[in-house]
Amino acid sequence: MLAVVGDSASGKTTLTRGLARVLGEDQVAHLPTDDYHRYDRAQRKVMAITPLDPEANYLDILERDLETLGELRPVLKPTYRHSDGTLGPPEYLVPGPYTVVDGLLCLSTDGLRRRFDCAVYMDPPEELRREWKLIRDTTRRGYTTDEVLDEMDRRERDSVKWVRPQRAFADLVITFRRGIDPAEKNLDAEILLRPTVPHPDLSGLGGTDAGDFTIAQLPHGEQLLTVPGMLPQGRAQEIEEAIWERLHFARHLQLDRLGQFTRGMDLFRSDALAITQLLVLYQLVTARAMRALDVAGAPLRGGSDA
Amino acid sequence: MLAVVGDSASGKTTLTRGLARVLGEDQVAHLPTDDYHRYDRAQRKVMAITPLDPEANYLDILERDLETLGELRPVLKPTYRHSDGTLGPPEYLVPGPYTVVDGLLCLSTDGLRRRFDCAVYMDPPEELRREWKLIRDTTRRGYTTDEVLDEMDRRERDSVKWVRPQRAFADLVITFRRGIDPAEKNLDAEILLRPTVPHPDLSGLGGTDAGDFTIAQLPHGEQLLTVPGMLPQGRAQEIEEAIWERLHFARHLQLDRLGQFTRGMDLFRSDALAITQLLVLYQLVTARAMRALDVAGAPLRGGSDA
Repeated sequence: MLAVVGDSASGKTTLTRGLARVLGEDQVAHLPTDDYHRYDRAQRKVMAITPLDPEANYLDILERDLETLGELRPVLKPTYRHSDGTLGPPEYLVPGPYTVVDGLLCLSTDGLRRRFDCAVYMDPPEELRREWKLIRDTTRRGYTTDEVLDEMDRRERDSVKWVRPQRAFADLVITFRRGIDPAEKNLDAEILLRPTVPHPDLSGLGGTDAGDFTIAQLPHGEQLLTVPGMLPQGRAQEIEEAIWERLHFARHLQLDRLGQFTRGMDLFRSDALAITQLLVLYQLVTARAMRALDVAGAPLRGGSDA
Repeated sequence: MLAVVGDSASGKTTLTRGLARVLGEDQVAHLPTDDYHRYDRAQRKVMAITPLDPEANYLDILERDLETLGELRPVLKPTYRHSDGTLGPPEYLVPGPYTVVDGLLCLSTDGLRRRFDCAVYMDPPEELRREWKLIRDTTRRGYTTDEVLDEMDRRERDSVKWVRPQRAFADLVITFRRGIDPAEKNLDAEILLRPTVPHPDLSGLGGTDAGDFTIAQLPHGEQLLTVPGMLPQGRAQEIEEAIWERLHFARHLQLDRLGQFTRGMDLFRSDALAITQLLVLYQLVTARAMRALDVAGAPLRGGSDA
C-alpha cells in the first residue's frame, strides 16, 4: 500500500496516474482521501474551515478502511465530488494487488502511517503549486480565479500546520521545479530517498556535471537525486533502464506510458517524471514481493537495498 | 449488541423504539441494515431484484461495520432513504453503550450472527404483516396501494428463501396476533424464549386460565410465553414488575414509556408489547453487565439464568 501525500495541486495525481497505467488499471485500487471530507463545500464555507484541517475529515474512518483494505477486504468508501463540492453516496472499493492512497493528510496520524509500505511526499515550490492549483481548479472544479486565490490564502495557515509536517514521515520526497528551461515539460526533478525503505542501488550512475543526473549522499543515509529536465535522451534512457533492471519481480510490466502529464487539455512527456515514477514503482513492486516472502517471516521494511 | 430481524413491516421498529425510549436515546446507537442496500429503488426495479436478496445488500460491509462497532469504534454507515428509495451520503455513527441493529438480513451469515449478544426474530402472521406494510408504505414511503401489493407478491419467494430461515438463529421469537378482541391495541403476544441466552426466571408467575398470562415448557429447554391483549391491568403490572425486579443492574431506567405504538397518526399503548419489550430489555441490560464482568473472564453467552 502506497501513500502519496501533499498539498492541493502538488502533483499527486500526475504521479500516481502513471503508476496505474504501468501496473494496469485493474491491478491498482485507488483511494483518494478527499473522499473522507466530513463537510461539503457549502458547509466548510459557513464553518470557515478548510479541508486541510483534520477536523474536517473522517480520519478515524480512513484509518479503519485502510486496516480493512490491508486485510484484503472491501470497503464502502465515502465520496466527495470535486466537480461541485458535494458529498455523494458511498462506493464499493475492492483492494487490488496494489493500493494507492493519495490526499492531503494520509500521514497525519500514527494509525494512518503504519498502514503504508511506502510513503511519498510531493513538495513542489509554492509558486509552482499555486500556478497548478489555479489552472486545475478553474478548469476542472468550477471555481473562479478569485475564489481560488482567496482559498489559497485561507489555506496557507492550515497547510503549514497540518500538511507540511507530514514531509518528515515520507520515504521519498519529490520536488519538481523550473530548471534552465522554464518550459513546463522540462521541469527538473529532485528526489530525496530516505533509508526508511530499501531503494534501488544506482551508485555508479550519477554524473558530476551541472546539467547531468546526480546522486548526492546526505547525512543520516539520505540520498538526493537530481534529474534535470533537459537531460539528453540517451542518458535518461540509461537511467530508466538501470532502475528497470532492478525491478527483478516485474518483468511483465509495460513501461512505455510513464512520464506523461497534462497541462490543461494538452498531453506532454517528461523523462524526469518517468524516472521519478520508476523509483516509486520500485517501492510498490518490491513491497509486494516482500509481502509474498513475508509468509517466511521476512520483515516488510528495512534500511538496506533488497 | 442486539439484532432485531424480520420481514418488512413485521414490527421491528415498534419493538426497538420503546427500548431506546427507556434506555435513553443517547444511550442507544441504532443501525438499520436497510442502509446497506446496494441498489436504489429504481435500480432494483430495472434489475428485478428485491431488497430481501443478499445480493442486493452490502452484507460484507455490514459484517465489518458490526465488527468495528463491537470494538467501540465509530463507522461511516451508508444511508438508504425510505422516503424516496434513493441512496444518500453516509453518516457517522458512534457506538453507544447499547447498539440495536434491525433489518431484513441481520442473521443471514455466520459473520453477522456472531456479533450479537441477543437476536430477536419478529414473526407476525402474514395477514397482519401485510396490513401493516400496506398502511406504512402508502402513508410514509410514497408507494401506491397497487405498488405495495405487487411488491409483496414479488417479495414472497425471497422472503421464504432468505428472511424466514433466520428464525432458527433467534434467541427470542416474537409473534403479535389478534386475540379475542380484534382491535389493534389488544393484540396477543407470543414470545418464544430459547435457552441460547439466559432469560429472567418467571416460573410461578404463569397462570392456567385461557385468558391469562401463561408459560409453556417446550422440548429442548424452550419456553413459550403467552400474553393476552385483554390481560387485566393489575395482572399486567404484576408481570412487568416481576421482570423489572430481575433487571438487577438497571434501577435507573425509566419504564413509563414502554408499550407505546402508532397506527397511522394515532398513539396507543399495549401491555403485551410492554412485557415483550421488557423481556428484550432484560437481554440488553444483562449482556452489558456480563460484558463488564467479562474482564474477569465470564462467558458472554450461557444456557442458564444469570
